[in-house]
Amino acid sequence: MDQQESCVPPGFRFHPTEEELVGYYLARKVASQKIDLDIIQEVDLYRIEPWDLQERCRQHAGGGHDEQTTEWYFFSYKDRKYPSGTRTNRATAAGFWKATGRDKPVLSSSTRTRCGTSRVIGMRKTLVFYKGRAPNGRKSDWIMHEYRLQSNEHAPAQASKSLIN
Amino acid sequence: MDQQESCVPPGFRFHPTEEELVGYYLARKVASQKIDLDIIQEVDLYRIEPWDLQERCRQHAGGGHDEQTTEWYFFSYKDRKYPSGTRTNRATAAGFWKATGRDKPVLSSSTRTRCGTSRVIGMRKTLVFYKGRAPNGRKSDWIMHEYRLQSNEHAPAQASKSLIN
Repeated sequence: MDQQESCVPPGFRFHPTEEELVGYYLARKVASQKIDLDIIQEVDLYRIEPWDLQERCRQHAGGGHDEQTTEWYFFSYKDRKYPSGTRTNRATAAGFWKATGRDKPVLSSSTRTRCGTSRVIGMRKTLVFYKGRAPNGRKSDWIMHEYRLQSNEHAPAQASKSLIN
Repeated sequence: MDQQESCVPPGFRFHPTEEELVGYYLARKVASQKIDLDIIQEVDLYRIEPWDLQERCRQHAGGGHDEQTTEWYFFSYKDRKYPSGTRTNRATAAGFWKATGRDKPVLSSSTRTRCGTSRVIGMRKTLVFYKGRAPNGRKSDWIMHEYRLQSNEHAPAQASKSLIN
């Protein structure tokens, strides 16, 4: 780990494109392939509050860590507790994540179809954190972008990005 | 070079703080010390127009290159042609760079004085590019931040950042 971290020269920050998040980090995570730098940690999203993510992700952030960042990246398993259910509320001890808006496609710029259009490699769901219990709860400023592979919708791993608006 | 470039994992972008630019890249350049990744190239600022910087700097950008960037970083020698003069206009073939506003200090957060205040490690000058010849010329959107070491004001090398507003 130390050797890997030292490979990121001064001045570099982790600002991945969605294509990199899905096409590299998530695809390799799902396929259990080697990831150059282990910068995205696994988090059990239902056992951690959004305001605790920063500390958790900071510990493992490695080289190129940005002190002023308001974005954190992590992998989380979806519906680990109830594999057969379609879970709509993703509850923590203090609140729950609720989807908002429509899912958006993540496109690959390098892989194009025969028609010349970009290929959809994944989908992004936007969720807002509410404090309290559904269907009540007070909307917070915490927003999460949850990415999944398009080719493998029921894969266990997801890459998520949590941020304050 | 290839080996160095491959060390920057996917998703990393070169977004240095001013402290990193001055305290690491410029300080090492001036001292002829090894720089982890040779991402900042030398440019003769008086022989290149601002709109040609992008192509020049792109060629050597290496890993973590950001396609959508509007900022480019380079080293340039100051007053190479007239070492003894105090040059105020920095002319290219098509125009000139003109200083604007006051120089601002670049502070080191890691090095503090006995009083607990931050130490000044460098200075930043802001310049605007004008097309044409001084004292006339049409102001452009091109802005440059020119950094110099505070401890070594007459050092030959500077790190500059050029950007479109």
